[in-house]
Amino acid sequence: MPRYKLVIEYDGTPFCGWQRQSDEATVQGAIEAAVTRFSGEDARLTCAGRTDAGVHAIHQVAHLDLAKDWRTDTVRDAINAHLRPQPVAVLSAEIVPPSFDARHSAIRRHYRYRILNRRSPAALTRAHVWHVPWPLDPDAMHDAAQRLVGLHDFSAFRAAECQANSPVRTLDQLDVARTTMALHEEIVVTTCARSFLHHQVRAMVGTLMLAGCGRLSGDDVADILASGEKRRCGPLAPACGLTFVGVDYT
Amino acid sequence: MPRYKLVIEYDGTPFCGWQRQSDEATVQGAIEAAVTRFSGEDARLTCAGRTDAGVHAIHQVAHLDLAKDWRTDTVRDAINAHLRPQPVAVLSAEIVPPSFDARHSAIRRHYRYRILNRRSPAALTRAHVWHVPWPLDPDAMHDAAQRLVGLHDFSAFRAAECQANSPVRTLDQLDVARTTMALHEEIVVTTCARSFLHHQVRAMVGTLMLAGCGRLSGDDVADILASGEKRRCGPLAPACGLTFVGVDYT
Repeated sequence: MPRYKLVIEYDGTPFCGWQRQSDEATVQGAIEAAVTRFSGEDARLTCAGRTDAGVHAIHQVAHLDLAKDWRTDTVRDAINAHLRPQPVAVLSAEIVPPSFDARHSAIRRHYRYRILNRRSPAALTRAHVWHVPWPLDPDAMHDAAQRLVGLHDFSAFRAAECQANSPVRTLDQLDVARTTMALHEEIVVTTCARSFLHHQVRAMVGTLMLAGCGRLSGDDVADILASGEKRRCGPLAPACGLTFVGVDYT
Repeated sequence: MPRYKLVIEYDGTPFCGWQRQSDEATVQGAIEAAVTRFSGEDARLTCAGRTDAGVHAIHQVAHLDLAKDWRTDTVRDAINAHLRPQPVAVLSAEIVPPSFDARHSAIRRHYRYRILNRRSPAALTRAHVWHVPWPLDPDAMHDAAQRLVGLHDFSAFRAAECQANSPVRTLDQLDVARTTMALHEEIVVTTCARSFLHHQVRAMVGTLMLAGCGRLSGDDVADILASGEKRRCGPLAPACGLTFVGVDYT
């Protein structure tokens, strides 16, 4: 029974997140249905990072076991054929040892959050950015972000429904940079950690936004982290700005 | 009667192109309706480059005349408010002399064409790229492209319905480069000229695609150009890969 590792890209807009639900369109549900249609097998996927409704991925990783030993190119192409016209694509399929687990073997997850920071709303990128029309200072955001890097109790940045056993995480990177092309002013937040709490990235980005417009200082952000009080953190940044961009394995 | 210069971004997907039509959604029609709603005036826009159905713009330029002397920020914000939720945004508005004409004062137009060159279909970028699943050689495409740069009769790359007086144009730039990020392999064509014939960019890109997969040599492309025969050029590349990226004025 070979195990396949899939690299997956998706536009999260039309989906109620990654995780299969009986009555909603989900990325996992779409791929599992495509696998069943091509293979006749009842497949179950396990992914590196279960994304919320509206969150995108350019490099999600999942594994699945199939009874039959298919060619990996066939697995990739057949799933893609059956996924049409949904905005999900398998970029690669490879056979991995049964010890490989897309979730538990992952040692680092990478996310990117895009803020469109200009007065005018988004047109071309409207499903992929958070539009913040007031001026933000990316340097102030970056400086405040450094107060969150490291080993901390991230209770202040955790969804009420988070199922993790512990709120303690080690945040390896939280960088903020402006990338301006003519009148298209973006602020990009790049972050990675072994794992994140539910809503952690979006709660951190919402808090950094307040640092970017001067409503919170770096010390304030450090205080919010230390307090563990969710009511003190910034607004939850919208899902559409968030993209799962990669995962590292040992 | 002040004249306003607008810089405009739009997602071409839901529109039947730029140019107003009585019974179809167009970018011009959407903006003119928004101007009328905020100002009460019957406005007419003139743009730098009338894009086809499905073609995008990150920096289209248009002018319009209004009887009233509005603040430019008000013009920008009011149009944007009335455009919602359509994917069109005015990025800036400024007052220009009556001698400024968005179309006739333009001395150079810039376009970008994106090809997603990988086996798997597009998910995140599906409305913004041409998916070419077979391997393309960007160097061969770039070399062939140089045979088209300069002053030529571009009849072979011209739509039957093109209304230009002459098929002679000077192509200033036609560059092809691969931009690869992990499994997201893109080939980007960057081009500029004082003006283009109708369908010229898409016909050139379709022809360069054939050079990229070895079906045409650089000499073949030069021959097609010299022949002036439209039936010999490559397929018309799909509109969704094309974006109007800018315009130069004296």
